Amino acid sequence: MNRLILSGILMAVLSPATLPAQTTFTNTLLPQPAHLTASSGRLPWTTSITIAIPHHRSARLEAALDRTLDQIQEQTGIAKPTITTGEATLTLDVDGPGQPVQSLDEDESYTLTVTPTSATLHAVTTIGAIRALTTLQQLIQSDGHTQFLPAVQIEDSPRFRWRGLMIDVGRHFEPVDVIKRNLDAMAAVKLNVFHWHLTEDQGFRIQSKLYPMLTGRGSDKLFYTQAQAREIIAYARARGIRVVPEFDIPGHTRSWFVGYPELASAHGPYTIRREFGIDDAAMDPTRESTYQFLDKFLGEMATLFPDPYMHVGGDESNGQQWKRNPRIRAFMRAHQLSDTAALQTYFSQRVLKILQKHHKHMVGWDEILNPQLPPDAVIQSWRGQDSLFEAAKEGHQAILSQPYYLDGMKSAETHYLSDPIPAASGLTPEQAKLILGGEACMWGEHVNSLSIDSRIWPRTAAIAERLWSPQSVTDVDDMYRRLDIESVRLEALGLTHISHAGTALRDLAGSPSIEALYVFAGVLEPVSFGERYDQQHTTQLTPLNNLVDAVRPDPPSRHRFAILVLQFLQLPSNPGPRTALAETFRSWLAAVPTVEAQMNTSPRLAEARPRAEQLAALANTGLEALNYISSGSKPPADWKQTKLAQIEAAEKPQSIVRFPFLPALTDLVKAVPDK
Amino acid sequence: MNRLILSGILMAVLSPATLPAQTTFTNTLLPQPAHLTASSGRLPWTTSITIAIPHHRSARLEAALDRTLDQIQEQTGIAKPTITTGEATLTLDVDGPGQPVQSLDEDESYTLTVTPTSATLHAVTTIGAIRALTTLQQLIQSDGHTQFLPAVQIEDSPRFRWRGLMIDVGRHFEPVDVIKRNLDAMAAVKLNVFHWHLTEDQGFRIQSKLYPMLTGRGSDKLFYTQAQAREIIAYARARGIRVVPEFDIPGHTRSWFVGYPELASAHGPYTIRREFGIDDAAMDPTRESTYQFLDKFLGEMATLFPDPYMHVGGDESNGQQWKRNPRIRAFMRAHQLSDTAALQTYFSQRVLKILQKHHKHMVGWDEILNPQLPPDAVIQSWRGQDSLFEAAKEGHQAILSQPYYLDGMKSAETHYLSDPIPAASGLTPEQAKLILGGEACMWGEHVNSLSIDSRIWPRTAAIAERLWSPQSVTDVDDMYRRLDIESVRLEALGLTHISHAGTALRDLAGSPSIEALYVFAGVLEPVSFGERYDQQHTTQLTPLNNLVDAVRPDPPSRHRFAILVLQFLQLPSNPGPRTALAETFRSWLAAVPTVEAQMNTSPRLAEARPRAEQLAALANTGLEALNYISSGSKPPADWKQTKLAQIEAAEKPQSIVRFPFLPALTDLVKAVPDK
Repeated sequence: MNRLILSGILMAVLSPATLPAQTTFTNTLLPQPAHLTASSGRLPWTTSITIAIPHHRSARLEAALDRTLDQIQEQTGIAKPTITTGEATLTLDVDGPGQPVQSLDEDESYTLTVTPTSATLHAVTTIGAIRALTTLQQLIQSDGHTQFLPAVQIEDSPRFRWRGLMIDVGRHFEPVDVIKRNLDAMAAVKLNVFHWHLTEDQGFRIQSKLYPMLTGRGSDKLFYTQAQAREIIAYARARGIRVVPEFDIPGHTRSWFVGYPELASAHGPYTIRREFGIDDAAMDPTRESTYQFLDKFLGEMATLFPDPYMHVGGDESNGQQWKRNPRIRAFMRAHQLSDTAALQTYFSQRVLKILQKHHKHMVGWDEILNPQLPPDAVIQSWRGQDSLFEAAKEGHQAILSQPYYLDGMKSAETHYLSDPIPAASGLTPEQAKLILGGEACMWGEHVNSLSIDSRIWPRTAAIAERLWSPQSVTDVDDMYRRLDIESVRLEALGLTHISHAGTALRDLAGSPSIEALYVFAGVLEPVSFGERYDQQHTTQLTPLNNLVDAVRPDPPSRHRFAILVLQFLQLPSNPGPRTALAETFRSWLAAVPTVEAQMNTSPRLAEARPRAEQLAALANTGLEALNYISSGSKPPADWKQTKLAQIEAAEKPQSIVRFPFLPALTDLVKAVPDK
Repeated sequence: MNRLILSGILMAVLSPATLPAQTTFTNTLLPQPAHLTASSGRLPWTTSITIAIPHHRSARLEAALDRTLDQIQEQTGIAKPTITTGEATLTLDVDGPGQPVQSLDEDESYTLTVTPTSATLHAVTTIGAIRALTTLQQLIQSDGHTQFLPAVQIEDSPRFRWRGLMIDVGRHFEPVDVIKRNLDAMAAVKLNVFHWHLTEDQGFRIQSKLYPMLTGRGSDKLFYTQAQAREIIAYARARGIRVVPEFDIPGHTRSWFVGYPELASAHGPYTIRREFGIDDAAMDPTRESTYQFLDKFLGEMATLFPDPYMHVGGDESNGQQWKRNPRIRAFMRAHQLSDTAALQTYFSQRVLKILQKHHKHMVGWDEILNPQLPPDAVIQSWRGQDSLFEAAKEGHQAILSQPYYLDGMKSAETHYLSDPIPAASGLTPEQAKLILGGEACMWGEHVNSLSIDSRIWPRTAAIAERLWSPQSVTDVDDMYRRLDIESVRLEALGLTHISHAGTALRDLAGSPSIEALYVFAGVLEPVSFGERYDQQHTTQLTPLNNLVDAVRPDPPSRHRFAILVLQFLQLPSNPGPRTALAETFRSWLAAVPTVEAQMNTSPRLAEARPRAEQLAALANTGLEALNYISSGSKPPADWKQTKLAQIEAAEKPQSIVRFPFLPALTDLVKAVPDK
């Protein structure tokens, strides 16, 4: 807990930066740049700012500049500056366009120098310039009278080359606009790979002109046309984001078989799967017709998606259909494939050859890792960080996802402190270079277009910083401070991760009066994917309109409450934290009766009634603990034991939501003087 | 003020309905049906509900049913019922499809009968069935344990045939999704005409394949393709909404002239107009080439838009270019046209002939009304209700818009009590039949895709009730009660009229902590279009990101505060209203310091600092008034005069926002005992 900064002063001392003592630079950047030196002075942002682009210019660069200026205008209310050909306040100095197809080796570095009279952005490539413009926009701040860029010298480049967000649109489809606004948010925090999980047992989401029945029968009519895919690819490209499509094979393929049952390892007919979890259906890896189909289909997709990488899944293929099929068993014996894992490796090798023919590198989930797998395949680690290190030790490039699963509903802090290459990795420097980066993963079982933003953001911004910034940047409190700022900036881009709660709570209550409900929901968070699945037995058809869908993982209240408890326990005589905690507990107590009254007319809300009762009890416990600690008086003999049992009971599964403040409340109760 | 119902009981007694004394029916319908009889009992809405469609079926009907069932599933959390071929709980009995192109004479009537064991919807047409399904959905309610349809007998049909919403997409473009969600909202309150104002001096928004430079040069690339227009027409058609396009001529046409300057009455070149207000540019009504262009263009549009009506504007053509052009002056003399109004009538007559050739009825704003105008032209009244009556007396069909201008920022109550055919209209019954209905008008100067919903909704729902329900339905308090319910239902459809405030306030504050700001913004509303234009000198390029853009017209706080003041003044010894008022004033006082602190770091917010200071002073005045009235003690000699002057000062223009609670606060101050 000693990571917590107790000072209320917002001045940030960046570990890689030197900061003159007299300056009052407020760091509003996320992710942190690699090197930042703040000096005194500022460049006012006014209508008299002018902009020059003296060297490389392109439509993409100018569009990026225009987007940034539009956003700054929106942010400051100051009309956007004009672009001049002569001397200018702000110079955008770019060497060249960068690569025609964005690659892993794209140079994203830039420098940004702000003095009291000018600002200069320099980058080798247009994408570097796009990153610089993002930093420029984040740097603009206000003292209440003027808006300005603080004088700084920034030299920046990413720690990892692959900084991704995966969105599963198979289990719940996400409309084009949802994808676009998430690309906007990714660009805002300098992520550069959109991993698009396009096919699942529950839905096939991309149009194939060669095989129209893939979406014709496997999509519930919810899919992207090729024109829409191209639109999204162009949208991403404009923001320096690669689009890596995933076609998950040989398992997770039931939706393919609805239109093309001949691909499967058992006779059809097949219907779209509504249940979640692992399905037995898998492609038949023993028939040449399967590879002919994949050659044509993946060839079509290789033309549609320009990125040099293509993801072919490979996860959770349980081999059940293979084991049950005598013809497949015979094939395995004939080819000396000792088990279904070996058969999957055979399949992976064949698919890898197809991808190579279409000039694509293969990416797969860590199940495909096998000594027989050619080193060209990239491994995405999800079953544990060990598979990441193992892949690198075997010479594969690798991407970390295991600690960045957003449906685990972990805190931003937990994600933030998970380093892709921790000290104990055991990797040589050469092996460490094979760790390309990481990806936040948004699986689609329990999200729809209304709630998805609130699951991805702002936590993914913390992951983005982990992947961009130096390994030494680990100040959690400062991250949360900047996350608050970034969260609001993301909302201004059109993300709904904050506003969704109000909308969903009004819908739950059937009333516009949700002040009390907002307090209640603000101290709840969703349980993890697995806990919800176990408790609710969800399927693709389960409506996602419960209280759990309205609340956010790691709500801001959690960290604020933890800080207050720490501050109070360090100096109980300090009235600030004590008063704030007492007010917090009283606001909980005040909210509960109103919430319980609303539950009387809203059955969907009423499911969480036990949580309302618990909150009132926990608030009283908190107030009592404050009093005992402040006064130094001792509670009755069994007080602490009773209260700790009460907290333990509140940690148990209930209403598929949980209280994220319980650890800090436990600290508070434990600090009550013993008898 | 005696309209206010003081009882807190939500039981509604509908004026045209009979209601057995023992039932506790809660009316959740908006608009009110023409005839409703509630009886005791209820039909539980559970998974065992089944649905039959015994007679007419069509894709449109089934899609409407499916949409309704999806929304009910979302609303109740209960999986949607299945459609059976045998006996069913719910019967959807429809005689036939209705007209192939929805006309003014479409039968929208329906009956809905709910008993404790079954529900039957009957309609003559599919559109009638769509209206019935909307009512069905609104009827579902909950007692906290079960969700149910109360037993009712409804016979319903609209009072007016033309119930519209106009959206101006010329001055600020609105994306397809914004239009679609507003169509969803229109259907939810049974509006049936989307009047699409597609062309303005500031932008030409619809693709013409014959004249590609209309959007090519006149749109800033912000326009609807013909494919998008067809998509919107189909979306509206599915919801029983006609789409009436408007091509505003001969004035408001500067954007046409950027690509086609030869249409204008003065030499070009022309650029897109950024300023608002009346422009001198107008089409040249004296050249045959103008009519040849319009014949082709309107012919193209007549094919694109299937509706039998086409709007050709005709408003605010000031004749300046005509007067200045010697050739046009000579034409007027040669044709004995005494003034530019006569020339515009000549133009209207020519355009009407073109529309007739393309089988369209002409609609125009009331400026086109003239004895020479053929009676086939429909007049839309905007300059005063007199023009509506005048049009009807001259034999024209007419539509009322004057009291329904949403940019006037009037209260829902004001709109609601404006009847299209008041007792004093002086119309004969035959003339009254020519009043087709009315249209809420959303002009585009000061709205963008973020704020537009908050300007249209929920106030337009009150206008929708005025146009659908019997003239005798005028209970303002009950309207506001149901408007609260409907407002939340609209948000569940995807409208952002409520959530927008939070998003905009976080953006203004640059912080997620907006509790205090929310209180402050909740007692402010935007000033009218004219006041803002005068104070801010807005253009199309002015960023719409001030506090005025974050606050809503007629915020719920206004009516609630007015009711509390009335209740308190009727019985000052009743502690409920007194306590609620005191808490309200104290919440204002508590919010102001936090808001002022946020203003210190947000220049855009700081513009409203004088309003924060005024709010604190007015809150103290309110508390003092409460005390004087409660205690019966008399204030110092000049107290009342000073406080009324303070309120008067707060009514003056400031920060382009205003306090909607001032009339009720004035009542409170005036009620303080005199010395």
